[in-house]
Amino acid sequence: MARWEPGARERLVVAAVDLFTEQGYDATTVAEIAERAGVTRSTFFRHFADKREVLVAGQETLSTLLAEGIADAPAGAGPLQAVAAGLERASGAMGPANRELGPRIKAAVAASTELQERDALKSVGLAAAMTAALTARGVPDPVAHLAAELGVLAFKRGYAEWSEGGDDTGGLAPHALAALAELHNATSALGRPG
Amino acid sequence: MARWEPGARERLVVAAVDLFTEQGYDATTVAEIAERAGVTRSTFFRHFADKREVLVAGQETLSTLLAEGIADAPAGAGPLQAVAAGLERASGAMGPANRELGPRIKAAVAASTELQERDALKSVGLAAAMTAALTARGVPDPVAHLAAELGVLAFKRGYAEWSEGGDDTGGLAPHALAALAELHNATSALGRPG
Repeated sequence: MARWEPGARERLVVAAVDLFTEQGYDATTVAEIAERAGVTRSTFFRHFADKREVLVAGQETLSTLLAEGIADAPAGAGPLQAVAAGLERASGAMGPANRELGPRIKAAVAASTELQERDALKSVGLAAAMTAALTARGVPDPVAHLAAELGVLAFKRGYAEWSEGGDDTGGLAPHALAALAELHNATSALGRPG
Repeated sequence: MARWEPGARERLVVAAVDLFTEQGYDATTVAEIAERAGVTRSTFFRHFADKREVLVAGQETLSTLLAEGIADAPAGAGPLQAVAAGLERASGAMGPANRELGPRIKAAVAASTELQERDALKSVGLAAAMTAALTARGVPDPVAHLAAELGVLAFKRGYAEWSEGGDDTGGLAPHALAALAELHNATSALGRPG
């Protein structure tokens, strides 16, 4: 029986990001990540399918929180108001460790095409989760799809701003909501397509 | 010296899509794709780095055409008008073969996480190319980013509609432009974020 290991998952993420930064993603093995985190290889594989998955840890949690926040928004809330509720819910799960890791994860992803691909698919997954939650509220296509894409952009822009030294009062939420408001304002500057 | 091989690249794409559909992406080898296309393995590798790249063939061409169309839009064109010009330019490069392959490529991508990742990164690349072209026109952030994302969504939605049996009069362009207009209309249904 495996004993209970407090924080093993978090330690694995930190160890992986450190090693990817120090020696590159390709050169890093699962054994090295486990060793740096002070756990066994089998503990690694209880938490992650492979080393690539470490960097998108929490995608399912994020998707679930975004969707729950959207589902729980007041009945009269419009599409972007519901998205804002999703961003608030998801932001609540992002603490100081996420903030501190942000720039290092960004650097590791920038240095590896394989991680860029996985990261891009993560965004697709978050958008799909939000689109489904908005559709369930009766938001028609393509408004649901568009609102979800704005939500993903706002989350990423807010996270970048927060983790790259922005004010930390209130955590990620105010940054994500400010980014959403900024994107909403930008819609009025698009002009007509034809 | 390699002799000139008319259509080798196109034949490789068709062969790969056929094999991915028939026997799955994982089970298909480069040797099989080359054999089906009637070319040597070394010809395959003159065109593609690996079997995954076959399915995103043309990404660089597409990016270039989208960016050129945006750059060549009239000086007074707004952001979405410039995006529309990019979509028109890129649509011109998509012929009957692209239309016919669409649903089969979609099926192959849906069946493989690896292809989904590559496909997601392709969208990121197209958006980045359009964002850069819009920024070069003086469109400020985040309007440029947002307009580019709408452009990617419009291209994908238009392509899906066109290749899944939509009217083929005028090729892909009218479908992509209709999708862009629909997305633009959707912006007014988003409501305020807070």
